[in-house]
Amino acid sequence: MNKGRLEAFSDGVLAIIITIMVLEMKVPHGDSFESLKPLIPVFISYVLSFIYIGIYWNNHHHMMYSVKHVNGNVLWANTHLLFWLSLVSFATGWMGENHFTKWPVLIYGFVLCMAGIAYTILTLALIRINGKQSTLAIAVGRDRKGKLSIIFYLLGMAVCFIHAFLGMALYTATAVMWFIPDKRIESKMKDEHETMHN
Amino acid sequence: MNKGRLEAFSDGVLAIIITIMVLEMKVPHGDSFESLKPLIPVFISYVLSFIYIGIYWNNHHHMMYSVKHVNGNVLWANTHLLFWLSLVSFATGWMGENHFTKWPVLIYGFVLCMAGIAYTILTLALIRINGKQSTLAIAVGRDRKGKLSIIFYLLGMAVCFIHAFLGMALYTATAVMWFIPDKRIESKMKDEHETMHN
Amino acid sequence: MNKGRLEAFSDGVLAIIITIMVLEMKVPHGDSFESLKPLIPVFISYVLSFIYIGIYWNNHHHMMYSVKHVNGNVLWANTHLLFWLSLVSFATGWMGENHFTKWPVLIYGFVLCMAGIAYTILTLALIRINGKQSTLAIAVGRDRKGKLSIIFYLLGMAVCFIHAFLGMALYTATAVMWFIPDKRIESKMKDEHETMHN
Amino acid sequence: MNKGRLEAFSDGVLAIIITIMVLEMKVPHGDSFESLKPLIPVFISYVLSFIYIGIYWNNHHHMMYSVKHVNGNVLWANTHLLFWLSLVSFATGWMGENHFTKWPVLIYGFVLCMAGIAYTILTLALIRINGKQSTLAIAVGRDRKGKLSIIFYLLGMAVCFIHAFLGMALYTATAVMWFIPDKRIESKMKDEHETMHN
Repeated sequence: MNKGRLEAFSDGVLAIIITIMVLEMKVPHGDSFESLKPLIPVFISYVLSFIYIGIYWNNHHHMMYSVKHVNGNVLWANTHLLFWLSLVSFATGWMGENHFTKWPVLIYGFVLCMAGIAYTILTLALIRINGKQSTLAIAVGRDRKGKLSIIFYLLGMAVCFIHAFLGMALYTATAVMWFIPDKRIESKMKDEHETMHN
Repeated sequence: MNKGRLEAFSDGVLAIIITIMVLEMKVPHGDSFESLKPLIPVFISYVLSFIYIGIYWNNHHHMMYSVKHVNGNVLWANTHLLFWLSLVSFATGWMGENHFTKWPVLIYGFVLCMAGIAYTILTLALIRINGKQSTLAIAVGRDRKGKLSIIFYLLGMAVCFIHAFLGMALYTATAVMWFIPDKRIESKMKDEHETMHN
Repeated sequence: MNKGRLEAFSDGVLAIIITIMVLEMKVPHGDSFESLKPLIPVFISYVLSFIYIGIYWNNHHHMMYSVKHVNGNVLWANTHLLFWLSLVSFATGWMGENHFTKWPVLIYGFVLCMAGIAYTILTLALIRINGKQSTLAIAVGRDRKGKLSIIFYLLGMAVCFIHAFLGMALYTATAVMWFIPDKRIESKMKDEHETMHN
Repeated sequence: MNKGRLEAFSDGVLAIIITIMVLEMKVPHGDSFESLKPLIPVFISYVLSFIYIGIYWNNHHHMMYSVKHVNGNVLWANTHLLFWLSLVSFATGWMGENHFTKWPVLIYGFVLCMAGIAYTILTLALIRINGKQSTLAIAVGRDRKGKLSIIFYLLGMAVCFIHAFLGMALYTATAVMWFIPDKRIESKMKDEHETMHN
């Protein structure tokens, strides 16, 4: 089956998700500098979501690059991931418009959490077809980073009942953790490359 | 003629259709958990349409992968399919906003039915140019699944006059039937592959 | 220079133009069959514009496929074409909302006319770099079809002062004329192919 | 790492940015020619932004074509560039709606300036991995054009305090300067090509 078209479709959907989020920043009616102020929370949530979608694209890119085979299960696991990521723009808009209050921040975390789980499912579907000795399988290992981030999202959702900013802090920490491209896959592929040439 | 660009254009249009549907879920003004409630029907219709577009992308991917040749007729049959799929987002929004009442559900079924017919036309156009001995032609056979789903859509539209939920049930059943990627093509291609290596 | 990326960018822009036009069809508030009635003119203009963008994609596909070289001028001629096509969605919305009255129909024709001129410029830029003996140059010849459609658009704009429907009739006639993929290029390429194999 | 997918993702995002800007031109309610008048400033800002995004796509195309290697840093430098470009549509809408008054024009210049800086960062990230002897490094040289345009943006922002039209004039001048595709890279590649064949 054709890996290229799966990548092309995912690129398309991710490109649209990352771009239509900007439509949630409604053009203010006034033309003073002050009229931008109410947009600050919307802007902050836009920045965070932009980084998140950027991370997903980046890691998706790395992961797909490291595998050889895809099948029907992978296609649906991928569509499932795109579904939750498509809701990020909705959650971002709600959170930004309400200045980071409890429920919007909690729901935002929920969407991130579901996307995280969907990404794990996609990883497992890819490992299943590419084998436990595949580059991806070895690179991911016990997937500590993936599990940790799901715990972080759940914690973030829970602490929203204390203060929503704590939730935001945890989501931001998770983004920082993922910001660096998945070194595991990159270094694993480098190793292979070197082994091949020795 | 270039199959790749037909796929790229279709991927682009399908990616946009699947993503802009989320714009129909307007961000609620309140920030309580209750303020999400009115969105539930919109969300349900979003999920169903997301699955439908996912199915079309998936099967389109399989079908295009199995053929070698495209021509002008195929290009227009494909554009015709994209036309009806582009109306899915409109029908989804109307159905969601009106909590699944008779006419919106019926029109939603009509759009799905036309998309189903358009897909059949595309299949026939592809078989015509690739030959009756092509992988696609043999895999599709008498296209029982395609015909059945059109009957299901028509039935779904009819039962809306009794209760719109019956219509929804039939559309959902059709989605379930298609959810599994088109095994016919996949298994046919596998056979060929094995034959080639014997 | 890379022809592939020019095609990819154009596919992306055309895919978005053709899809966001559907956003002009606002979901009606009522749920009766009658509540769809006011949408009929919007729907008709959507169908016409969908066909127009489909024609442009189709012919763009044929034209780019027939050439080997692109340069900076081609890139900008292509961006210029995309600019006018991007305005089709605006003109479509205005025309649909006002039920095909004089000025909206005239402006719609103006946008189509400018897109037609831009397409001619792109053709000339491609011929200039690919040579007067290139497949494209010979296929296009004196470009009677291109010149005719610009005359039709101008006529269509003029007759709007008598009745806007006459303008619509002429735009529709032009669409019908282009509906069939550019046989000139296709048959020219076939000839070449046969010559090569004799 | 895969250069093709970076290009595909960037093409997708740029295609969407350039196209959704047209959504800021709201369809006027009247159907007279006069009802288009209030749209003139929105249209002018749309034209300028369309040209800017066109320039970025064009130069991005040239730059990526001239390099062989990309890495994680390049991916993030590219995402950073796309972030600022995604804000162009917002700034365009604000500027157009307010008829080019001080703050909107200044903020528009700020977004362009940040995009210019992001492009410089991307260039440096690409040179770092492709080497100081790479085609790109030699073509860019001391990057006088890049530095000059950032100075122009800053000047443009400053003169907004005198009159916003002066700012617009400087942004337009910068666009004109970049309008011509980056001859540096093109001529450098030509040289290499000739050297190779002597």
